[in-house]
Amino acid sequence: MKKVPVLEIFGPTIQGEGMVIGQKTMFVRTGGCDYRCSWCDSAFTWDGSQKPDLMQADEIVEKLEKQGGDVFNHVTISGGNPALHSGLAEVISLLQNKGIKTAVETQGTIWQDWMLEIDDVTISPKPPSSGMETNWNKLDMYMRELLNHSNNDLSLKVVIFDEDDLTYAATVHERYPEVDMFLQTGNDELETSDNSWLLSHLLEKYEWLVDKVLQSERLNEVKVLPQLHTLLWGNKQGV
Amino acid sequence: MKKVPVLEIFGPTIQGEGMVIGQKTMFVRTGGCDYRCSWCDSAFTWDGSQKPDLMQADEIVEKLEKQGGDVFNHVTISGGNPALHSGLAEVISLLQNKGIKTAVETQGTIWQDWMLEIDDVTISPKPPSSGMETNWNKLDMYMRELLNHSNNDLSLKVVIFDEDDLTYAATVHERYPEVDMFLQTGNDELETSDNSWLLSHLLEKYEWLVDKVLQSERLNEVKVLPQLHTLLWGNKQGV
Repeated sequence: MKKVPVLEIFGPTIQGEGMVIGQKTMFVRTGGCDYRCSWCDSAFTWDGSQKPDLMQADEIVEKLEKQGGDVFNHVTISGGNPALHSGLAEVISLLQNKGIKTAVETQGTIWQDWMLEIDDVTISPKPPSSGMETNWNKLDMYMRELLNHSNNDLSLKVVIFDEDDLTYAATVHERYPEVDMFLQTGNDELETSDNSWLLSHLLEKYEWLVDKVLQSERLNEVKVLPQLHTLLWGNKQGV
Repeated sequence: MKKVPVLEIFGPTIQGEGMVIGQKTMFVRTGGCDYRCSWCDSAFTWDGSQKPDLMQADEIVEKLEKQGGDVFNHVTISGGNPALHSGLAEVISLLQNKGIKTAVETQGTIWQDWMLEIDDVTISPKPPSSGMETNWNKLDMYMRELLNHSNNDLSLKVVIFDEDDLTYAATVHERYPEVDMFLQTGNDELETSDNSWLLSHLLEKYEWLVDKVLQSERLNEVKVLPQLHTLLWGNKQGV
């Protein structure tokens, strides 16, 4: 069994964003990322500030079951970039054998065949404000693989901080018009613990994003969402 | 052409709730309802306080296009209960001819064949707190018709105010386990114009609902959502 570096296993909670927003789920957050987004809200997965546990697939599933008991049947694998870890194949297969659904979020840079087995796949290419550069050829191959060889529910998600990000999102959307597209308010206040201030700040940003999308012909088909968990619980980790 | 009583045509805005939450859409709100839910947030559609315009299908589509210009391609038909109006068949067909998608929300009491033509169908049976009684035979027939004869995306949505409503929602969910199920925070403060107070009140209620769902084995598969438009804009009509 290949081990997987795990930073957090938590839940049950709700998925606060994207294609299955509101879904009751457990989270497995893996360590390590090939990106270093300037505004990453989980930088502890790659900046060395928190140390992952190297866990076997059966240990991961055991911990999920111990913690979630009978009140879950959906597991979200997040990161970092979980696509760094081939060992997740076994986690997914163990969960499937128990009738538990899975979701993943990744930027679409590193392929893993287990991607085809996931129920809810979110590909989240990173816009200019992240400081990262999109490799379009790689992303094309990634999307083609998912569209041609999988029955999973597939979506794209782009986090938006500014106008350039919006233009980028429109480009992504037009490149893969058959894929459901989600735009999400970026959180530029990751350090504050003043939750009521953060709430009004993020709702203002969400309203700005809604207004921009409403005015754009290129974004008629998209869904615009906030992060519900941040509205509820601020920047708290593990919820 | 059969005329349709229309109370509001507004947008583009976002759909604030349910299966296509966050979707850019225009709204057509029809007048009249066979229900009188105690907490109805659109009681003006049936309590006589606002007078509908009787409009022909082409007039409705014309107004949508005049108001939405080129920045929409999704129209949500809401009420009241839009299933009262056979004249909507023509509206839907005109929109489809223009490549515009449609959504509808109805409690599942009155059948219309145009229901099969809608892209995103939300059936929202009303829980005990509404004061309404569910006719299960009718609802069974309704769901069977949609499941057997349509290719639309179908969901159930139940608004939750209390524990009895949650039990009701679990019963609905178990009766139609193959249908995506959304639970939604009820708004019990329809009169207030203090938006910042309402926001914190509704988020508290949302957190209560999330906690309850997380604890319930019967609700492992559901999605729990607030009303985003109310978080953003309070009780304002026409947004």
